[in-house]
Amino acid sequence: MPRTTTGHQVTGRNMNADELRIGIAGLGTVGAGLVKLLRANESIVAARAGRRVVVTAVAARDRTRDRGIDLGGVTWHDDALALARDPDVDVVVELIGGAEGIARELVTAALRAGRPVVTANKALIAVHGAELAELAELSGVPLMFEAAVAGGIPAIKAVREGLAADRLTRVGGILNGTCNYIMTAMRESGRPFADVLAEAQALGYAEADPSTDVDGIDAAHKLAILAGLAFGRPVAFSSVHVEGIRGIDALDLGFARALGYRIKLLGLARRREDGIEARVHPCLVPEKAPIAQVDGVFNAVVAEGAFVGRLMLEGRGAGEGPTATAVAADLIDIARGIAVPVWGRSADGLTQVEALPRTAFHEEYYLRLNVHDRPGVIADVTAVLRDHGVSLRSMLQHGRAGADDTSGEPSVPLVLVTHRTRESAMMEALARIAALPAVIGEPAMIRIEAG
Amino acid sequence: MPRTTTGHQVTGRNMNADELRIGIAGLGTVGAGLVKLLRANESIVAARAGRRVVVTAVAARDRTRDRGIDLGGVTWHDDALALARDPDVDVVVELIGGAEGIARELVTAALRAGRPVVTANKALIAVHGAELAELAELSGVPLMFEAAVAGGIPAIKAVREGLAADRLTRVGGILNGTCNYIMTAMRESGRPFADVLAEAQALGYAEADPSTDVDGIDAAHKLAILAGLAFGRPVAFSSVHVEGIRGIDALDLGFARALGYRIKLLGLARRREDGIEARVHPCLVPEKAPIAQVDGVFNAVVAEGAFVGRLMLEGRGAGEGPTATAVAADLIDIARGIAVPVWGRSADGLTQVEALPRTAFHEEYYLRLNVHDRPGVIADVTAVLRDHGVSLRSMLQHGRAGADDTSGEPSVPLVLVTHRTRESAMMEALARIAALPAVIGEPAMIRIEAG
Repeated sequence: MPRTTTGHQVTGRNMNADELRIGIAGLGTVGAGLVKLLRANESIVAARAGRRVVVTAVAARDRTRDRGIDLGGVTWHDDALALARDPDVDVVVELIGGAEGIARELVTAALRAGRPVVTANKALIAVHGAELAELAELSGVPLMFEAAVAGGIPAIKAVREGLAADRLTRVGGILNGTCNYIMTAMRESGRPFADVLAEAQALGYAEADPSTDVDGIDAAHKLAILAGLAFGRPVAFSSVHVEGIRGIDALDLGFARALGYRIKLLGLARRREDGIEARVHPCLVPEKAPIAQVDGVFNAVVAEGAFVGRLMLEGRGAGEGPTATAVAADLIDIARGIAVPVWGRSADGLTQVEALPRTAFHEEYYLRLNVHDRPGVIADVTAVLRDHGVSLRSMLQHGRAGADDTSGEPSVPLVLVTHRTRESAMMEALARIAALPAVIGEPAMIRIEAG
Repeated sequence: MPRTTTGHQVTGRNMNADELRIGIAGLGTVGAGLVKLLRANESIVAARAGRRVVVTAVAARDRTRDRGIDLGGVTWHDDALALARDPDVDVVVELIGGAEGIARELVTAALRAGRPVVTANKALIAVHGAELAELAELSGVPLMFEAAVAGGIPAIKAVREGLAADRLTRVGGILNGTCNYIMTAMRESGRPFADVLAEAQALGYAEADPSTDVDGIDAAHKLAILAGLAFGRPVAFSSVHVEGIRGIDALDLGFARALGYRIKLLGLARRREDGIEARVHPCLVPEKAPIAQVDGVFNAVVAEGAFVGRLMLEGRGAGEGPTATAVAADLIDIARGIAVPVWGRSADGLTQVEALPRTAFHEEYYLRLNVHDRPGVIADVTAVLRDHGVSLRSMLQHGRAGADDTSGEPSVPLVLVTHRTRESAMMEALARIAALPAVIGEPAMIRIEAG
């Protein structure tokens, strides 16, 4: 084998030059998919890794479940932590999930033992990535997580290696396929959120407890990781501003279309003079923007830099095949001796950065109010906006919604689009608008992004 | 520095651990852009490379030209070959271009001297990639060429590393920004090819001699490289089927639109049971396909595999900033000790593969004939197609084009869309159709792709 692919020892231990032996913790969809991929593509993987990649051990809860894979000859551990010590394991693949508990213990134990780790665990990297980077560096072993962000899209590699030379100013995209599926179906069918969510659950696109997806948490984990890679230091996950899609009404999808926009749940991180913005929330994006065209379960990652300009990567963000491909790519990198620091630079002295608070955002806004159809309502609303320095770009008043207030007084939706303004001003204005007697219920506010 | 980033010596020579010294051959747009990028992003590049990346030597023809960069303290060589011997150069960056001549000599000499090479030279890699891979492997040094395909899009890294574990079935895309710009402008303005080309030349999007771009050669170089990476062995460049865009009439863009398509110059490589298809030609793609939305100077790379599904990467395919970003990413990889075999696997015994001939293609076809408006013409044309087993999906006859034949007899365009059929059958049918007395001039034939 050529010196270029084998000159580098990834662990202090003496790895077998003929094969890379992996231990998989967690045999759910991705774990079983990885076993299938490594067998189906055995010779391709061996040629590209420069040696065979074989599964020697697994750890999972239910030994009896049929996963459609033959585990004969593979050591079964009931305790995942045993993989960190198994002498027949060169690399630990953690596919259990969750920021805490056994996943975190296993990754920590494996790194401490000088054993390379591959994980698909976005929560773990988003929340504990700073300390794990330090540990990986101390032990001198790689910690890889291509599968943690955007499934089959090699987003980590693109941002951390492909764009490593540029000063990135913006990174993000459509990071949750479940939300994108739900919002695409809502737009296409005009049906309400709850209906479409139930359908997505029946189809297996949404979990029984969908909150991690629909409340934006999953997208926020991925965004925090992308932001950390783009800006060269981990972003404190707790500082990411997160809003999900439960509040999106089919009405808003219709108005957005009338205004020339689509609504997408985006994760967006931006480098500003005064700090870093990191936020996940629904956005109106112009219907002609490339990201507006990415529908259904597909994900898209956008990155922008001073030299490279704007890039978009689009593909399947989840599922057995795409995620297993990403995990296996990390294994091939490890077999080849490729190792990049977790955050793209030495972890030594690398401190977490807090993202800017919501009050610092500066956007265009879409507002939808439900108002009584009385004289003077628009004057009252626009006066509040004027008082807070918010100027309007357009307004849409659209028929009668009917008597949906308890008083039986007719009400209508009133849609306003603002010019760019400070979110702090917008928050104050909205609080006053919500308190106007003619305004019924909570105003809906959606930020507008260029895409 | 952590063991993970420095344990690997990329050359047999003793590189300086504090800096990576580069020698640049060719100071055109990309060369000057690289110098600017390495200076503007000096601290980012150093943090990610684990050491400083400094330009210590350059070679170019005209010492007096103002390139907007300060070359004080940098050694100037009139002979590019001197960079392969300069003791103050760790990595040679070849930005001269061309498959033969000085570029090839320099890359060969540098690799022989055990010196890593980074190049943006698509022609060189497409034509001589097999032998250069062997040489790089013999010398144990990396030969990197991220900038050779799709500029700022990390396409090489995505295909060779990110998708390394999957059996790719298809790779390609919009690989030439000049052609995409010209065809976008033709579609939007309805103006003819020659007009739009002249405008593109005035704007600097096309060269004074545009043939490498508009005849599809540049796209074919890039496609051959992508195909080689996707399928794990170099594809003989001479076997790639290449058609450019000179034959595209504004009429065709209009008919395509009427049929729900756009026309794009695509490079497409496909793994079949019986071999590999590799071809560059204009294609009708459904207007809803993601690749149909990629307009202007933008490039898009599409890859498809059994496990990963379909990916698309979109971004700037040329220009100073994007291309320099790609070159610098390769330099960072080299500084980090990352080295991947040229074709993704050991070059030992790796032979070139010939792409399948045109007669083996199997497509849907768009045909536009200019016919005399006489009774029986359609019957004659469709009879020929039937004789060759070509079945029709749709037909469009559209007004009168006027008397453009020397005989003064009225002629009309006749557009036919076929079902999937063997190109050999189509070629035979077309030869007979062209010979029909009622058919004026050469029929236009454009293949239809799903995108």
